[in-house]
Amino acid sequence: MDDTFGILDLGTLRRAYDSGVTPAQVIAVVEQRIEAAGDRAIFISRASHEQLAAAISDLLARAPRANSLPLWGVPFAIKDNIDAAGFATTAACPEFAYRPDASATVVARLVAAGAILVGKTNLDQFATGLNGTRSPYGAPRCVFDERYISGGSSSGSAVGVAAGLVSFALGTDTAGSGRVPAALNNIVGIKPSPGRVSNTGVVPACRTLDVVTIFAPGVSDGIEIRAVMEGRDPTDPYSREPGEVALPDRLRLGIPAGDELAFFGNEAFRGLFVRAVERARMLGAEIVEIDYRPYREAAALLYNGPWVAERLVATRDILAARPDAVNGVVRDILHNATRLTAVDVFQGEYRLKALLAEADREWARVDALLLPTTPSTYTVADMMDNPIELNSHLGYYTNFANFMRCAAIAVPAGRTAAGLSFGIQIVGPCDSDAAIAPFAAAMHQAARCGAGTDGAYHPASVPLPLAGERLRIAVVGAHLRGMPLNGELTGRGGLFIRTTTTAPGYRLYELAGTVPAKPGLVRDDNHDGDGVEVEIWSLSPVQFAGFVASIPQPLGIGRISLADGSEVSGFICEPAGLIGATDITVFGGWRQFRQQAEGTGPS
Amino acid sequence: MDDTFGILDLGTLRRAYDSGVTPAQVIAVVEQRIEAAGDRAIFISRASHEQLAAAISDLLARAPRANSLPLWGVPFAIKDNIDAAGFATTAACPEFAYRPDASATVVARLVAAGAILVGKTNLDQFATGLNGTRSPYGAPRCVFDERYISGGSSSGSAVGVAAGLVSFALGTDTAGSGRVPAALNNIVGIKPSPGRVSNTGVVPACRTLDVVTIFAPGVSDGIEIRAVMEGRDPTDPYSREPGEVALPDRLRLGIPAGDELAFFGNEAFRGLFVRAVERARMLGAEIVEIDYRPYREAAALLYNGPWVAERLVATRDILAARPDAVNGVVRDILHNATRLTAVDVFQGEYRLKALLAEADREWARVDALLLPTTPSTYTVADMMDNPIELNSHLGYYTNFANFMRCAAIAVPAGRTAAGLSFGIQIVGPCDSDAAIAPFAAAMHQAARCGAGTDGAYHPASVPLPLAGERLRIAVVGAHLRGMPLNGELTGRGGLFIRTTTTAPGYRLYELAGTVPAKPGLVRDDNHDGDGVEVEIWSLSPVQFAGFVASIPQPLGIGRISLADGSEVSGFICEPAGLIGATDITVFGGWRQFRQQAEGTGPS
Repeated sequence: MDDTFGILDLGTLRRAYDSGVTPAQVIAVVEQRIEAAGDRAIFISRASHEQLAAAISDLLARAPRANSLPLWGVPFAIKDNIDAAGFATTAACPEFAYRPDASATVVARLVAAGAILVGKTNLDQFATGLNGTRSPYGAPRCVFDERYISGGSSSGSAVGVAAGLVSFALGTDTAGSGRVPAALNNIVGIKPSPGRVSNTGVVPACRTLDVVTIFAPGVSDGIEIRAVMEGRDPTDPYSREPGEVALPDRLRLGIPAGDELAFFGNEAFRGLFVRAVERARMLGAEIVEIDYRPYREAAALLYNGPWVAERLVATRDILAARPDAVNGVVRDILHNATRLTAVDVFQGEYRLKALLAEADREWARVDALLLPTTPSTYTVADMMDNPIELNSHLGYYTNFANFMRCAAIAVPAGRTAAGLSFGIQIVGPCDSDAAIAPFAAAMHQAARCGAGTDGAYHPASVPLPLAGERLRIAVVGAHLRGMPLNGELTGRGGLFIRTTTTAPGYRLYELAGTVPAKPGLVRDDNHDGDGVEVEIWSLSPVQFAGFVASIPQPLGIGRISLADGSEVSGFICEPAGLIGATDITVFGGWRQFRQQAEGTGPS
Repeated sequence: MDDTFGILDLGTLRRAYDSGVTPAQVIAVVEQRIEAAGDRAIFISRASHEQLAAAISDLLARAPRANSLPLWGVPFAIKDNIDAAGFATTAACPEFAYRPDASATVVARLVAAGAILVGKTNLDQFATGLNGTRSPYGAPRCVFDERYISGGSSSGSAVGVAAGLVSFALGTDTAGSGRVPAALNNIVGIKPSPGRVSNTGVVPACRTLDVVTIFAPGVSDGIEIRAVMEGRDPTDPYSREPGEVALPDRLRLGIPAGDELAFFGNEAFRGLFVRAVERARMLGAEIVEIDYRPYREAAALLYNGPWVAERLVATRDILAARPDAVNGVVRDILHNATRLTAVDVFQGEYRLKALLAEADREWARVDALLLPTTPSTYTVADMMDNPIELNSHLGYYTNFANFMRCAAIAVPAGRTAAGLSFGIQIVGPCDSDAAIAPFAAAMHQAARCGAGTDGAYHPASVPLPLAGERLRIAVVGAHLRGMPLNGELTGRGGLFIRTTTTAPGYRLYELAGTVPAKPGLVRDDNHDGDGVEVEIWSLSPVQFAGFVASIPQPLGIGRISLADGSEVSGFICEPAGLIGATDITVFGGWRQFRQQAEGTGPS
C-alpha cells in the first residue's frame, strides 16, 4: 500500500486500523521505511520478517478485532539494553551480549497490549553518555543535520521515532538519556517518576536511579503508553504502585535565575527558551525565578560523585576480562570509578541529601520546573574531540531529576535558524506524571513544530488528570468557577472536570442570611424539574477531607444524584437552613440566578 | 532534704516542684545519688557543681514559676557521642575528644524546655556495639547483677536512668543501642522513626540510620520528651517534620513464627516472651505469626553488609593516625570495613531493597510487631571472650528497625528467676510513634515490674493519639461502637475519642426504610432539649475523605454543634430523608432508642 501516514502516532494508526488497514500492511510500511532509511546506525538488531509475521499472527489470534487492545498493532522499538525474548541484548557492547530467556517486564506488558516489536536500537554503550557517539555500532545522527549528534544514550530509539520508523520507542534515563535525544530530534520524551515502571530485564546503569522512558510523537501518546507499562512488578523491588500527585490548574513554573540559566554559548537555544517561557505565560503559567544552584550541584554529583561506581555492578566483569571490548571513553569513565570506596558512597549520599534539602526550599515556591532539556548541541566531530566536557554540558538540566525522584516530560520547543531542534522539559515532583502532562502537551502544541521530521503533525491536547485516587465533588453555589469561594477548590489543587446537572428531583433555594450568598440544594423526589446546574471538581483525598471539614452550617457533603443517573459527593443542606429560604429552582442554577440578581444576565 | 523520691519520673518531679521543692534541692539529690552510686563507669564527664548552679539560675531567670516549662528542672544525661556546650565529646575514645562550640540541636531543645544536664555517659566506643563492654572508661553493669553486661552502646545512659540518677537520658540507636540496654535494665527506650529527631551535633555511627533515643522510666515520660526534641532541623538534612500514622484500636501484632523466634538458649527469656504475648492478647491485641526471615536477613546486613563502612566516615582519621587509641574489638570491625568498595555499597542497597519488599508482604498482615528486645544476655566475662558473635545475638530483634524506618518502643517485660530483666518492643511503621505508644505503655503496666531498680514505680497510661492532622467526626447512629457500621470507622483506623452530646437544639429521627436502621440528626434551633448523644472519632484525612464519600443518601457530613459550644464535623440529614421518619429525640440517643426497641435496655 502507499505510505501516506506521516509520523506514526497512535491516532493515525487507529484511524487506519478502523478504516480496514491491517497490521501486516502497517508493518510492511515500517519495513519499507527502515529499508529506505538505509544504515543510519539506528538499529542494533531488527525483527526478522518471520518474527514480525509471527507477532502479527499472535496478535490477531488473541485480539482479532481492530483496536481491541490498547496498543493494537502499534510498531515499536526498544533500546538494546532492554531484554526481548528472541533477541540478543548487547548494551552496545557485542562482547557483553547475551540472549535473555524472557522479555523485560515492560516489553512483555507492551506486547500483551498489542504492540509489535520491530527492533532494538543503538545507544551509548552501557547507557553511559548523553550524546550518541559512544557505540561500536556507529553514531546515529540528528534527523535534521547529519553533522550533529543525535543525543543519547537512547540515540537509536529517539531517531527511530523522529524519522517515523516506529510509533514509539523505549529508552532508559539515568542522567537524561530519555530526554536529551528527544529534544535534539523534535519529539517527546516521557520520563516517569522512578519506580513507576519496572526495570526487570533492563541492563542497569545506576539501578537506584534508572528509569525506562518512552519516546513518542506527542505527550498524549506517551502517557497512554506509560499507563500500559507502569505498576508494581514483584520481580523489581524498586518498582511500586504509582501514586498521583495533583498540581493546581494554574502552574507556578520555576526557571533558573541569573547565570544559572546557562546555554554554554548557544544563543539560538537561549532565544528559543525565552520564547518558550513567553508561551508558558500565555498558556496561563506563573513564571517564578528560582535558585538553580542546588539542582546544578546535584546534577554534577551524578558524574563527579560516587554514583559512577554503580555502573560497575553490571560492567566490572567485562571491564576486567575484556577491557578492549569497551568503548574508550566509557572505559576511562568506568575505570576511574573502580577507585571509589564505600566511604565515598556514603559521603556522596550525605552531600546529595544536603542538596535535596536546599532544593526543597525552591520546590516550595513552585509546582514544577520549566527547563531547557539540553542547553546546547554539538557536531559529532566536536563531541569526539571533547567527549567528557561536552557530554556533561548536555546533562546540565537533566541530571538532577532522578536524584529528586521527579517526573519529567520533554517536548519540542522549536527549531533554530540553522534547523536544529530545541526542547524544553516540564519537571514535577514525584508522581506528578499525570499532573504535568496537560501543560507539557499544551507547550508542544503552542510550539507548532510538529514531531520529528513530520512538520504537519499536530499534537493532541491532554485533559487534566483524573487520577483514580482523586475524589469528585459536585458544587452548586459560591464554589462555582468565578464565584467568591472558588478559591477554596483551586487553592486545594482542585481540578475542574465539567458542568452538568442534577437528576430531575432537586430544588435550589437561596438561603437566608449567608455571607457570601449561598444556595441550598434540596432533593425532592416529588419534584420533576430540569435538574440544577452543578460543577464537578476533583480533589485529592487529603484536600477533600479539609474541604469537607471547612464547610459551615447549614451545608455539608452528601451524595448527589446526577442527570446521567450516577451519584457523586456534593453539597446538601440541613433542614434548618431552609428557614426563610427562597425557592429559585426555576433559574436552573445558582450562576443563572446570580446573573439575574445582578442584572448581568442576558436580557 | 531527705531523698524519698524513688525513680525520678516526670510525675514525681512535677508533684515535688508543685509542693515547693526547688530545682536546687532536686539537683542536690541527684548529686548525692551519683556520689552514693560510686564509680560504676556510668559517666564519662559530669557537670560541675558550678555548671549545675548556673543551669538552675538560668532556668529560674527564664521561668521562675514551678513547672512553667515542659521539662522544668528535670535532670538528664546524654550519651557522650552527643555534643553539649561546656563538655568534651569523647565517643568513648579520649584521643578522639573535642570540645564543641554548641550543643546538639536536641540538647539545646531540652535545655530550652527547662531540663538540666547533669552529665555525659559511657558508651561502646563510637557507638559500635550493643553490649557496653567496649569502652576505655570501663563497662557499666546491669543494675540487677554486676556480673552481667548493661547492654549498649548507650550503656551509661540506660544504667543512669535505671539507677534513678537522672529522670531521663539520651542514647543513640543505629542497630539497637537505644533499646537493648533499656531491656537489660528494666526501663523504657523510645526509638523515634528516623528523621523525626535531629542528629546535628551527634557523632555519626551510620548517619543514614542513626536515631537519637530516650531512656525513661515510662512510655508517657518518654513520648513527652520526644515531643520536645523532634521536628525538622534546618542544619540536618536527614531531619524532617514528623508525620502521624494511625493504627487501629485493636492492633494486629506480628510475632516471629517457628524457629525464627530465637533465644539462643535463654529459656528464661523465652518464657517471659510467651507470657508477654499472653498479656498482649489479654490487652486486646490480635497476635499474627509472621515470617521473620526478611527482617532477620536485613538485620544481619547491618553488621555483615557495607553499612559498617559508613562508620569509617567519622573514624577513619583516628583509625589511621592512632590505631592504638581505638578499642581492639572496634578497631578490628572498622579495619575490616576499609576494604569495602563503592560497588559493595550499591550491591548492599539492592539486597536491602529486595528484603524490604519481602518484609512488606509481612507488614501488610500486621499493624506492628511484638518482639523481644534482645533474645538473651551475657556476663561481662562471656562477652569479652566472644565479643563479635554474642554481640550480634543481642541485635537479632533490633538491627532491622532503622533500615525499615520503623518507630520502636522498648518496655520492660519482667524478670527472670535469677533477677535479670527482660524486655519487649512494639515496632511500628514509620511515623507510628504516637500510635504504638498507648499499647507499649499498657504492656509496661501489665508487666508489673516497675522501672529500673524501683519496683514500686507504676507506669502511667498513654491515651490514644490525637495527632493534629487527624480530623474529628461525630457519629450518631449505626457507626457508634457496637453498632453494625462501626467497622467503617475502625477499618479505616478510626480512633474513638469520647462520648458527648450535641447542643440543645437537635432532634433525632428514626429514618424510614434504611438498612441497617439509621437515625437522622436534625438541627432545630427552636428546640431546647438535652442534646443527642454522639461519639467523637478521629480519622486521618485520607480515611475521612473515603468515609465521607461512602455515606449514602440522605445522610452527609456537615458541622455539628456540641454541648460544650464547640463544632465538629458530623452527620447531617437531607430534608428528603425525613419523610416518614419518627422523632425519637426523647430517648436521648440512638443507642438508648435501639436498646428499648430491642428490649435490651435497663428495665
